[in-house]
Amino acid sequence: MTRVRVPLPGRRYDVLIGAGIGAAAAGSIAAAISARRLLIVADARAWEHHGPPLHRTLRRTFDTAVVTVPPGESSKTLRSAERLFAACRDHRLGRDGAVLAFGGGVVGDLAGFVAATWQRGVDLVMLPTTLLAQVDSSVGGKVAVNVAGIKNLVGTFHQPRLVLADTDWLTTLSPRERRSGLAEVVKYGMIADRHLFERLERAGGGLLAASPEELVAIVAGCVRIKSAIVVRDEKDENRRLLLNYGHTIGHAFEAAARGRLRHGEAVALGMRGAARLAEGIGWLDPASRRRQDHLLDSLGLPNRFLGVGPAELEAKILQDKKVRDRKPRFVLTRSIGSASVAPPIAASRVRRVLADLTSS
Amino acid sequence: MTRVRVPLPGRRYDVLIGAGIGAAAAGSIAAAISARRLLIVADARAWEHHGPPLHRTLRRTFDTAVVTVPPGESSKTLRSAERLFAACRDHRLGRDGAVLAFGGGVVGDLAGFVAATWQRGVDLVMLPTTLLAQVDSSVGGKVAVNVAGIKNLVGTFHQPRLVLADTDWLTTLSPRERRSGLAEVVKYGMIADRHLFERLERAGGGLLAASPEELVAIVAGCVRIKSAIVVRDEKDENRRLLLNYGHTIGHAFEAAARGRLRHGEAVALGMRGAARLAEGIGWLDPASRRRQDHLLDSLGLPNRFLGVGPAELEAKILQDKKVRDRKPRFVLTRSIGSASVAPPIAASRVRRVLADLTSS
Repeated sequence: MTRVRVPLPGRRYDVLIGAGIGAAAAGSIAAAISARRLLIVADARAWEHHGPPLHRTLRRTFDTAVVTVPPGESSKTLRSAERLFAACRDHRLGRDGAVLAFGGGVVGDLAGFVAATWQRGVDLVMLPTTLLAQVDSSVGGKVAVNVAGIKNLVGTFHQPRLVLADTDWLTTLSPRERRSGLAEVVKYGMIADRHLFERLERAGGGLLAASPEELVAIVAGCVRIKSAIVVRDEKDENRRLLLNYGHTIGHAFEAAARGRLRHGEAVALGMRGAARLAEGIGWLDPASRRRQDHLLDSLGLPNRFLGVGPAELEAKILQDKKVRDRKPRFVLTRSIGSASVAPPIAASRVRRVLADLTSS
Repeated sequence: MTRVRVPLPGRRYDVLIGAGIGAAAAGSIAAAISARRLLIVADARAWEHHGPPLHRTLRRTFDTAVVTVPPGESSKTLRSAERLFAACRDHRLGRDGAVLAFGGGVVGDLAGFVAATWQRGVDLVMLPTTLLAQVDSSVGGKVAVNVAGIKNLVGTFHQPRLVLADTDWLTTLSPRERRSGLAEVVKYGMIADRHLFERLERAGGGLLAASPEELVAIVAGCVRIKSAIVVRDEKDENRRLLLNYGHTIGHAFEAAARGRLRHGEAVALGMRGAARLAEGIGWLDPASRRRQDHLLDSLGLPNRFLGVGPAELEAKILQDKKVRDRKPRFVLTRSIGSASVAPPIAASRVRRVLADLTSS
């Protein structure tokens, strides 16, 4: 088992990563929180695959209630949150209770929002079951729901008390989900870790069938990067923006595609667009841009999406939370492993890149 | 104008109190926040009385949109929050925007919840228009909505950047609203300020027609107490519980009465109950308990409420956020001006007090 600490002052917590560590989850959780009453919010599909043995061990230590949430972004709404608040009430979850999120990014964000606001905040434990959630969304305390179809429009910051990532849970992911998670792994390489990027290049498509040891090493590498960034900028004011590499255009694709693109697929498109913008303003050399393209290709991640038009994407980009004075801000790379927030980029240049990504 | 500072580390803010200071609100607000785009959330009745001149001055400095909220606790729901989120979106309120709450406790809590969660938090300015909001709910950062008819069940902490309390706004309050606000003023005297309590005793029923100077002094006195408590315990873990004097039984009355009791009326009943409990366990001498009763009587605040039964109140008390291991915790006074959290009290004793407060 690998332990990565997130050393936030006064609220430090551990991220435990290992193959099979879910079997000892009850002990790890009991050591991290004082609550003995748990509301378990679980992705319905992940719960079906991995819930029963986990629940057996948790029930020995905790007074539990389970609410399952249908897979997919459409579960991340205020309506779903309201359903979970009712479950908190029915389970008599007091301020000394805790919420446990078992699932991917949707469940983590939704259950995290509920934990952050139920009785003005109760403890939160994250058990991420997707690669994307293990490397990214379960760590860092961003919680949110979608409103009016706009992603993460309403939320807050609420750090978990513990993140426990059992890489065995990843074995039941579909190849598409796994590819989607790998897009975020590529992101970490691009923004902060040239060696990680080169490791991914060497493995290439073989990553889709990585060994348990390799998965643990990759997840831990990403979590270490994320932890370092979050500790320097918990509230997303500066350095944390770097984690948005590929997400400005990516979120626009994801929203416009209305469910036809997974988050990681949209981020892959966003990273391809960002690399083109970076190349266009002279930040990134063409060879590095091609290396990113080639790595994303080898992972089977999309290089274009014909289902939306560039004008719709441009409008969505202006709804991005990073927009100031109606100007989008892009995180771009200067080389593989080094990213910054770029100066404003001409709309014509952005439009050209969006047109490229949406035409055959 | 009186200025009371709330010196929270890194997020200190001012509470400005004065007769007629609303006329200069735009300048005070512009000095406190960098936002130039404002969503104004206003109590419909307060806005009718005092909105037009305020809006004229605000519009010169800010790009504003106004959403009015019907008066009353029934506006404090996730549904209302959703309506305000849509208004934020329509007004294109970015992270660099701000929410302004103009109204009483309901509007402050609701608009504060929206400010806390819209795009994971934007600036909040409080313009409290009721005595209750001026002395209590506008200061301290507690924001919430009601869920399943249970008060403040979902919320968070989000400190305002500025509180501006124009006591002229209080002139249009109904006598009942004014009495309700005075109940919270009595609370401050009981928990922390014997001199304030004696000042209230001297004024008695005359408080209902207090002069502008007297009102400013009373509001400032209460805000000073609240500020000192909040700074020592922002997240409601210990000292801040003292502000809940009268609120454990009070919230139960308020919920059970379903709109027939105002918050302050319910708190008055709660304080009467708390003083009886305190007397019963030997904390408060009978003469002090009678002084509190007499002061509440002179302000025309209720001494019983026949519309609910003690069993229903007891059940509601067990839903209180302070409950641990199914035991309610009461804030009680040892003397006028000094409160603490009391040890667990026998259910039979609580039941007797509740029976007294609900029978003629």
